[in-house]
Amino acid sequence: MQTYDAPLRDMRFVLHELFADDGFGGLKAHEDFTPDLLDAVLEEANKVAKDVLLPLNASGDIEGCTYENGVVRTPKGFKQAYDTFREGGWASLASDPEWGGQGLPETVNKLVEEMICATNVSFSLYPGLTHGATTAIEGHASDELKQLYLPKMVSAEWSGTMCLTESHCGTDLGLLRTKAEPQADGSYKITGSKIFISAGDHDLTCNVIHLVLARLPDAPKGVKGISLFLVPKFLPKDDGTPGPSNGVSVAGIEHKMGMKASATCQMNFDDSTGWLVGQPNKGMAAMFTMMNTERVSVGVQGLGINEIAYQSAVAYAKERLQGRSLSGVKNPDGPADPIIVHPDVRRMLMTMRVYAEGCRALGQWCSRALDAEKHSDDPEVKVRATRFVALMTPVVKALFTDFGSDAANLCVQTYGGHGYIREHGVEQFVRDSRIAQIYEGTNGVQALDLVGRKLPADMGANLRPFFHAVSNLLEDMAKVDDKVLKIWTGGMQQAFGALQLSTATIAQKGLKDPEEAGAAATDYLRLMGLVGMGHTFLKAAQIATAKLAQGAGEDEGFYKAKLATAGFFFDRILPQATAMFLAIKSGKRSMMALPAEAF
Amino acid sequence: MQTYDAPLRDMRFVLHELFADDGFGGLKAHEDFTPDLLDAVLEEANKVAKDVLLPLNASGDIEGCTYENGVVRTPKGFKQAYDTFREGGWASLASDPEWGGQGLPETVNKLVEEMICATNVSFSLYPGLTHGATTAIEGHASDELKQLYLPKMVSAEWSGTMCLTESHCGTDLGLLRTKAEPQADGSYKITGSKIFISAGDHDLTCNVIHLVLARLPDAPKGVKGISLFLVPKFLPKDDGTPGPSNGVSVAGIEHKMGMKASATCQMNFDDSTGWLVGQPNKGMAAMFTMMNTERVSVGVQGLGINEIAYQSAVAYAKERLQGRSLSGVKNPDGPADPIIVHPDVRRMLMTMRVYAEGCRALGQWCSRALDAEKHSDDPEVKVRATRFVALMTPVVKALFTDFGSDAANLCVQTYGGHGYIREHGVEQFVRDSRIAQIYEGTNGVQALDLVGRKLPADMGANLRPFFHAVSNLLEDMAKVDDKVLKIWTGGMQQAFGALQLSTATIAQKGLKDPEEAGAAATDYLRLMGLVGMGHTFLKAAQIATAKLAQGAGEDEGFYKAKLATAGFFFDRILPQATAMFLAIKSGKRSMMALPAEAF
Repeated sequence: MQTYDAPLRDMRFVLHELFADDGFGGLKAHEDFTPDLLDAVLEEANKVAKDVLLPLNASGDIEGCTYENGVVRTPKGFKQAYDTFREGGWASLASDPEWGGQGLPETVNKLVEEMICATNVSFSLYPGLTHGATTAIEGHASDELKQLYLPKMVSAEWSGTMCLTESHCGTDLGLLRTKAEPQADGSYKITGSKIFISAGDHDLTCNVIHLVLARLPDAPKGVKGISLFLVPKFLPKDDGTPGPSNGVSVAGIEHKMGMKASATCQMNFDDSTGWLVGQPNKGMAAMFTMMNTERVSVGVQGLGINEIAYQSAVAYAKERLQGRSLSGVKNPDGPADPIIVHPDVRRMLMTMRVYAEGCRALGQWCSRALDAEKHSDDPEVKVRATRFVALMTPVVKALFTDFGSDAANLCVQTYGGHGYIREHGVEQFVRDSRIAQIYEGTNGVQALDLVGRKLPADMGANLRPFFHAVSNLLEDMAKVDDKVLKIWTGGMQQAFGALQLSTATIAQKGLKDPEEAGAAATDYLRLMGLVGMGHTFLKAAQIATAKLAQGAGEDEGFYKAKLATAGFFFDRILPQATAMFLAIKSGKRSMMALPAEAF
Repeated sequence: MQTYDAPLRDMRFVLHELFADDGFGGLKAHEDFTPDLLDAVLEEANKVAKDVLLPLNASGDIEGCTYENGVVRTPKGFKQAYDTFREGGWASLASDPEWGGQGLPETVNKLVEEMICATNVSFSLYPGLTHGATTAIEGHASDELKQLYLPKMVSAEWSGTMCLTESHCGTDLGLLRTKAEPQADGSYKITGSKIFISAGDHDLTCNVIHLVLARLPDAPKGVKGISLFLVPKFLPKDDGTPGPSNGVSVAGIEHKMGMKASATCQMNFDDSTGWLVGQPNKGMAAMFTMMNTERVSVGVQGLGINEIAYQSAVAYAKERLQGRSLSGVKNPDGPADPIIVHPDVRRMLMTMRVYAEGCRALGQWCSRALDAEKHSDDPEVKVRATRFVALMTPVVKALFTDFGSDAANLCVQTYGGHGYIREHGVEQFVRDSRIAQIYEGTNGVQALDLVGRKLPADMGANLRPFFHAVSNLLEDMAKVDDKVLKIWTGGMQQAFGALQLSTATIAQKGLKDPEEAGAAATDYLRLMGLVGMGHTFLKAAQIATAKLAQGAGEDEGFYKAKLATAGFFFDRILPQATAMFLAIKSGKRSMMALPAEAF
């Protein structure tokens, strides 16, 4: 059974307690948002997630989207849910008040996103893509385009897409062929075919605004010749309502492994009218504004599925009776004990739990930097935040989605044979989570972004905020007298040492031979992710220990559980850092030894 | 695209070269099977796999089985393929000649199974379950039952099932409720409902023979009160043809994540006539005969999917053009290089390749022991073989199926977005492979079987044949002068040391507290699997190095590739042993720290 109730206590912990001293807080723009107000937002969001989105998750998977005579339909109930969502203001939570948004901090917005992704990740794409598109328009479009499109998109009356991929090119967008012909009135005629367009068409909104990558007639080859265009499905009339159709058609929808309630469309643009967004031939830069926001959000998809997978597994493990505890009967009145008594079931549950709590904390750290990057008055803080976001974006995207898939699989495993059966609703998590490791740049591409762009930039400047934070905490913790915290600090010191050594190795070898950096990339990203999670768990343990020493009252259970979770991370997950370090050290030799023709 | 051609050269390597000196060979029963004959069997099997089974794999997934008015139908083409398969004698390859089988060694049979599972794992269950059922009947049934049923089942004219699971009990069969009432004529009336019955009903054979676990009226509670019964769908007439129906009905088929062409049935037995197989209340022992064979075969399912995932990924990686090589353009005439040039794509391909070759070798070692256990004239060899099989069965089942799922996922990842789309045929591998980690005992149950039964039995006697083989090879290799082999030997010594230490830790702690053994189980099984695979790679490297030194002629490419694959294993996979060792060492504390109610 798909089981969900937002982990509000943990959300409040990462929101208010965990990063109080990280130097990214105290933003004027957010002064009005009191902790109580933010908590109330989370509580209301939980209701929407549980009551509106979750009931459509399994049914949406079974029914899927349909395509008939050029028209795409979402599953039963989606239109009504979308209206409820939109009318409740949930689509515009973090959008700029200038365009009708509520201007809430990303810290809260990402927690709400987690709830939406947990309960209906297919649904999340419709408002999610719109939000990404508005970001790119806000950042790069002309005032005229902004005035015309942003209010309708921020209110979610119209939706948005990003049209990048063509059948022969995904990662390598330099190969794309869609053409843009300049017109006398300053507009362009866009012609070409795109695939894998999430929310490309549907019945939730009366207009869809496409952001399309295309080539101008005289554009240079490769990625330096790509421009970004805004192409509406229907051209707006003077009164702002959708007018004539614009040569945008749907050739079909994809039959996918999962995410079946999300319409993934093949789009044709046939002399469609579009307007340039940003500078000619600078479309990739404009698109990356959108992609970076989206990448963190895709990470949150992994986290959301991780959390619902965890909760669904826990519910089953407490209820399913099978076998007896190895340490003596726990349920003497029943025919057997609930399977949560078995160590190997605990292993699975604790792993999912550690992944969810660790990702939530690391994601929150990243969100704080996103807010500071946008709103801080202090130029130093702004720079630090920008660097931290640059470094962590690929880590969050890849680590969270890998863990999300792992958690989904652990949930199925906890259910045993019943997990493989559609009616129990948990194999859907495996199918739904799988795409997040691929889209918005595969996790391999994230790793290359990390070692190939983010590390070398500015002589490693992006690393500094992160490395400083970790060093500072480790220094702090070295003075602590608590026996357990000492052991965990030791583990973190080792892992951090491995990360620093790996960084140096990659910088050195990669300079001479970029394939060396490429060969290290995936293990290095995972290693950095583990150190990042370790940092949040050590900080959390420090706080929890202090609170418990003071007497934590009704929060005692929460802090004790936090220590238990941290313990599992340091005992069972962090040791993987050693294996990654050894793999990185071995270099590219064995990875590239076999000639291509010998495969 | 699902791409497959059996890896015949590697199969011949593991069959004839790799284990020539393991002491399990030279069986009189197999004297007539010359290497040439066995190679010819493999070549013919490859044709059946490629030409008969592979073309039905994707279509079978899309169509699935159907259930209507109590009748189950397999997808289009399955009946014809089954007839071809049966008439070619493929169903009876390893069966006893006494019952019409061909008596081929398991070593060859398991390689053929690999091909069948690679090209159509759903199909493999129909003959697979029959083979398992015949094993249990051969081992435990009366002569009369054998005479009546075995010839028809060995010829695959009739099929077989194993009916264990009920909706409230899978792992914990002690809870089962199906009843058996003794009749005056020595038969029994069986009444009850079973779920998850693979090949429970279908249109491939005119009769289905069920092996059903049930309770006699006066049976003791729990697993000690379970008996095994043979219950045919149709009662055979005197002339051996199917006669009147026997109260066996299908209540429905399951809607599963994958394996959609395999009919997984809910079966009702309503006063069905059955006959006892083996002793009253000793049904679990009889069923375990079947389960053990099946567990190794389930491991081979993982290996089969691993291999086709690898080949399908390689084909795509050689063809898909995207980006340029970091070490200079490789395909100057094309718009981009094939993605096989990228280190991170190599990482995925090499990982799949290492998993497939390592599992094939380890599986072959196990098959040799299976043959020796059955046919050796030397009682010492027989004991050694039995112990080796006992130890390795859970390892093969869990390791191969975990790696099979990993490989399937890596294949999808290699395809990027296209991998998520049904038409490309590779997401099916993920869905199909997932069940193998669960059925015939979840992989967590395999790990418990290893630490809870196989290790402690006879003061660790089961470990001896395996540990001796590894020690002997390491001693041998310590004398070798080759620089690379020395490094790999060093890695293996470390991993083997970790395995020995872990064994001692588990034995010690587990004796006092069985939860300690349970907490170590999954990591320990993986560690043992890695050491087992490492042993085969080191042996393979020893052979390849010697062959290349002699001048290997047309086999030069094969042996060089084997060294490259071994190198990747020792550089990139074996280091994980360290993480497992540290996790095992940490014990149960953090795994069991959180009280059940705090989840």
